[in-house]
Amino acid sequence: MGNTDFAYPSTMNVEGAHQVAIPPSKPFIKSFMSNLKETFFPDDPLRQFKNKPASKKFILGLQYFLPILEWGPKYTLQFFKADLISGITIASLAIPQGISYAKLANLPPILGLYSSFIPPLVYAMMGSSRDLAVGTVAVASLLTASMLGKEVSAIENPKLYLHLAFTATFFAGVLQAAFGLLRLGFIVDFLSHSTIVGFMAGAATVVILQQLKGILGLEHFTRGTDLVSVMRSVFSQTHEWRWESAVLGCGFLFFLMLTKHFSKRRPKFFWVSAMAPLTSVILGSLLVYFAHAENHGVQVIGELKKGLNPITVTDLAFDSPYLMTAIKTGMITAIIALAEGIAVGRSFAMYKNYHIDGNKEMIAFGMMNIAGSLTSCYLTTGPFSRSAVNFNSGCKTAVSNIVMALAVMITLLFLTPLFHYTPLVVLSAIIIAAMVGLIDYDKAIHLFKVDKFDFVVCMSAYIGVVFFSVETGLILAVALSILRVLLFVARPRTNVLGNIPNSMIFRNVNQYPNAICVPGVLILQIDAPIYFANSGYLRERISRWIDEEEEKLKSLGQSSLQYVILDMGAVGSIDTSGTSMFEELKKNIDRRGLTLVLANPGSEVMKKLDSCKFIDEIGQEWIYLTVGEAVRACNFKLHTGKPSLATIEPENVSNV
Amino acid sequence: MGNTDFAYPSTMNVEGAHQVAIPPSKPFIKSFMSNLKETFFPDDPLRQFKNKPASKKFILGLQYFLPILEWGPKYTLQFFKADLISGITIASLAIPQGISYAKLANLPPILGLYSSFIPPLVYAMMGSSRDLAVGTVAVASLLTASMLGKEVSAIENPKLYLHLAFTATFFAGVLQAAFGLLRLGFIVDFLSHSTIVGFMAGAATVVILQQLKGILGLEHFTRGTDLVSVMRSVFSQTHEWRWESAVLGCGFLFFLMLTKHFSKRRPKFFWVSAMAPLTSVILGSLLVYFAHAENHGVQVIGELKKGLNPITVTDLAFDSPYLMTAIKTGMITAIIALAEGIAVGRSFAMYKNYHIDGNKEMIAFGMMNIAGSLTSCYLTTGPFSRSAVNFNSGCKTAVSNIVMALAVMITLLFLTPLFHYTPLVVLSAIIIAAMVGLIDYDKAIHLFKVDKFDFVVCMSAYIGVVFFSVETGLILAVALSILRVLLFVARPRTNVLGNIPNSMIFRNVNQYPNAICVPGVLILQIDAPIYFANSGYLRERISRWIDEEEEKLKSLGQSSLQYVILDMGAVGSIDTSGTSMFEELKKNIDRRGLTLVLANPGSEVMKKLDSCKFIDEIGQEWIYLTVGEAVRACNFKLHTGKPSLATIEPENVSNV
Repeated sequence: MGNTDFAYPSTMNVEGAHQVAIPPSKPFIKSFMSNLKETFFPDDPLRQFKNKPASKKFILGLQYFLPILEWGPKYTLQFFKADLISGITIASLAIPQGISYAKLANLPPILGLYSSFIPPLVYAMMGSSRDLAVGTVAVASLLTASMLGKEVSAIENPKLYLHLAFTATFFAGVLQAAFGLLRLGFIVDFLSHSTIVGFMAGAATVVILQQLKGILGLEHFTRGTDLVSVMRSVFSQTHEWRWESAVLGCGFLFFLMLTKHFSKRRPKFFWVSAMAPLTSVILGSLLVYFAHAENHGVQVIGELKKGLNPITVTDLAFDSPYLMTAIKTGMITAIIALAEGIAVGRSFAMYKNYHIDGNKEMIAFGMMNIAGSLTSCYLTTGPFSRSAVNFNSGCKTAVSNIVMALAVMITLLFLTPLFHYTPLVVLSAIIIAAMVGLIDYDKAIHLFKVDKFDFVVCMSAYIGVVFFSVETGLILAVALSILRVLLFVARPRTNVLGNIPNSMIFRNVNQYPNAICVPGVLILQIDAPIYFANSGYLRERISRWIDEEEEKLKSLGQSSLQYVILDMGAVGSIDTSGTSMFEELKKNIDRRGLTLVLANPGSEVMKKLDSCKFIDEIGQEWIYLTVGEAVRACNFKLHTGKPSLATIEPENVSNV
Repeated sequence: MGNTDFAYPSTMNVEGAHQVAIPPSKPFIKSFMSNLKETFFPDDPLRQFKNKPASKKFILGLQYFLPILEWGPKYTLQFFKADLISGITIASLAIPQGISYAKLANLPPILGLYSSFIPPLVYAMMGSSRDLAVGTVAVASLLTASMLGKEVSAIENPKLYLHLAFTATFFAGVLQAAFGLLRLGFIVDFLSHSTIVGFMAGAATVVILQQLKGILGLEHFTRGTDLVSVMRSVFSQTHEWRWESAVLGCGFLFFLMLTKHFSKRRPKFFWVSAMAPLTSVILGSLLVYFAHAENHGVQVIGELKKGLNPITVTDLAFDSPYLMTAIKTGMITAIIALAEGIAVGRSFAMYKNYHIDGNKEMIAFGMMNIAGSLTSCYLTTGPFSRSAVNFNSGCKTAVSNIVMALAVMITLLFLTPLFHYTPLVVLSAIIIAAMVGLIDYDKAIHLFKVDKFDFVVCMSAYIGVVFFSVETGLILAVALSILRVLLFVARPRTNVLGNIPNSMIFRNVNQYPNAICVPGVLILQIDAPIYFANSGYLRERISRWIDEEEEKLKSLGQSSLQYVILDMGAVGSIDTSGTSMFEELKKNIDRRGLTLVLANPGSEVMKKLDSCKFIDEIGQEWIYLTVGEAVRACNFKLHTGKPSLATIEPENVSNV
């Protein structure tokens, strides 16, 4: 014992080495079910139903799908006061924003108001967020315009285009609800943080570029969304630029940005920026009305139909030749809308410390869009800007959405004529002001500082969206993100471990420069699951480590290598390619006259290695609970001159 | 100290806790280059070039691309004797197999001989395997027939079909060489072991089904490869079945299987099964010649052109409208061929304990196919059956390939007329006999026993190939394999750790039922990198663990939870979604009045957490080197009544 080259606590000895047990085999069906549960029901939604009578179960089930039944009975007058104020505040934002985004989607402006009426009511009953304000969003509007616009022109064939938009909304809703019901919420997780930052900034840039049409008062404009098409379109018709429109637009934009800046610096005055769009609309309309600016190149909204949402059940174009386009549009916009809505809901829930169930939210979004598509609405979600205003104005529950819907209803019934003279350029200014906030430089700089790969993902999303198309950017970024996961598994790191002085602890020598390598023993740590994608690489890489170590020892004139210890603590899983790799590695190491030792294999790894008989092959006496114990045993055998594989310790045999 | 509830070696105390250092920051470009090197040059091919004079470097470089220059000068007469025998043995297999596979690819039979002449010569110079025998393979032949056959009929337009086959071979060669030169060898790793088992069995089944045409002497046959089409085609023309053909076919098949079985049981007589195909061809031809069976419904090969490979440089159809089909065919067959060739080369190299460089092999395969496409050959690789015969007959170097090529050359120059009367049904029997061995039941059973998911991948490849198409099966299996990797990362396991009695070791309580949980402390181990795909899940899952633990403690009436320790030892990497997750988790845990403690974070995790300022947020004093030390510190603080975050130990401050 005194021969060993490093210290270990005297309370331990070779005889006391711990045994790595092969976990008791579970029936396949049981482990399959538990995996399935962990994959699809990680939040265990049925926990609260356990051990309850049937009637209670029914009520809990209803409350699951309609959370309003849960919080409704506890609703107080004090809550209502707060919700009333915030509801009116978001309505004043929702009306001009709704009209603007509907124009962006090449849909009749009135649809923006319709979409702020029915969907918020549905969400108020089904949603579990207390802060989310429902409405249309710029990115989904733009996507609708660009994807449907490729097949059907909104100007030449407005009726078909409108029906396709409803159909797309319907499929978006069906997909969202299906995601929620089938517990596929994790699909949204594949839109990484960095993807969303880049994508949102790119989409905002594209949306702002589209507003050049309104600001410059152009009649014709490209259908493309990429930078090159827009610039070409803008600069090929410089003779059509209208200075009246541009001056008005820049003036309102300045006003909106100023109020935004003001509210940001003084959060108490959040209502200043929340009211600014409606103020701009009123001011702009009055200006046009009194100056007859509509005759001087300033385009106006024109007539808006009075009355509530018409039913559009019969307008869904299931038999149209463009059905596939509608489905595709619906699917992409649905995912984007989910990503934004759920992220917004979660962020505010975290602030107020309550819980949001992603899958339940998806069902709520889905139902609200299905209902919307039947009542003249297009795709809605929980936009960040509107929800932030809702939160800041002190909303307590989803009742603020109901207040907003009622305010919009009143507008639809009585006030639509007031928007006749609203200049389009004001709407453009409102959109630009909302979009500028989505370009988050700071976040991109943060990504660059913390993680270069995430920055690349972010930039590729941005560049893809701005220079090619919205879908290109999205797909590019998701593909890169997935590639990163695959590369992590395909090229796992293998670290050499050394002994931290005066301890039994072994750590990566690169991370802990004071860690000391043990003579005659090479300790490697593998830090990824061993799968088909890396088994070939690992076999070669471990061989190379052994080669290099032997060369190094030879050049230093030290005693040769005797043991190769693999620290399996970070190997979470293994497949049959991995187990074959171990068999080959074992043969290779045996042939070199060395001994392979495993340290700390996890339960799944032990199970797999056992079922392919590798445990018998390597010998249970060469599997240790910790690297420290493995090294101790190797040193013991080295110095008692029994380095052969045949060494069997009696106490281990009795434990097997 | 005496208050703590579990034992730890007396040589350690709280003051002696080890510090987790933030690794010194490397310049970005340096770490990027080292990542790049590990991804593309894991075998460090330039190591041998280091510190050598320029002339030596040039020679080493030449030897790298032409290994024959390395082993050629050491070649001995004894080696030659062995290679001569094995070369002649494999030639006797290559000639009938080559003709059979060319028929399978719907190409002129003579191409099978051409393809066994030029490519082996190229491989002998460039390849690094000593045991690989070059030739065409059934699966790639079938794929060529089915993929090109979809666009161009081999019967109606044989010339265009032939040219497209050369073009596909050319692109396959270019792709293979490019893979090797660009060090993209790891793409082949994505064909997992289980994919290959299922795919090969499926392809063998499909190839055997195709032979029903030859065995039954049918004139017309479906172009489909799936089971349903073939069965429909066979049973819709029962009146055309020829019993003469069927009897002959079954007879030869029985003979071939018998010799195979014999050689398998007595490996010394490997030559019996190796010679059997040529014997069958000779016997069959004699039978037809003397019995004039060609007039009784037994189809024969017919005339084979005498002479060596014609040059086909000008036949490459680069300007054909079917160029994309040729490229697609080339790409898929190239990958399949690489997978088989490299796996075969590696297996035999492992037996004989020498090393094969995958990327170098790819360059060799690529050059051999490019050369082949210019000289009337179609896709070649290292087929398993032929290489196994080569190995068994005691080959020493790639000279056996040269001997085979010369034997084929003599056949081409003088012996082709002998094949005039060879019945097609014998070729079918030869193919079936070769294919039966590829259906590896035992392996599939092994997969089922060891890893259910791998079994599912294997069966989906098989079913995809047999019931749909060869590409469908392949894509399905690869997609499933990749899905597994993504699911591993998307749903990492979180294990509760407990203390192994009488030690400082903490392990998964499910794996080690004797591990004891520490009161007031929840220890969780995360066993995957923390990426965008799982950060949402982990946040929720960890919250749920805390909920459950608190509930459990409450129901047991024990003291409440105070600390949450995360064992980060198995977290290999983290991205910005992961660091945000930690920030949110920290807030959440703080809000519950608990303290978050990290144990054993790796260097990359430390770096990332540091650059996003999370280390400052959590406090370096809450990061420990091992779980044991973290628990000790928690217990110490619990019992000295200082559980607050503000507790700063002076010795840690001085170390920061």
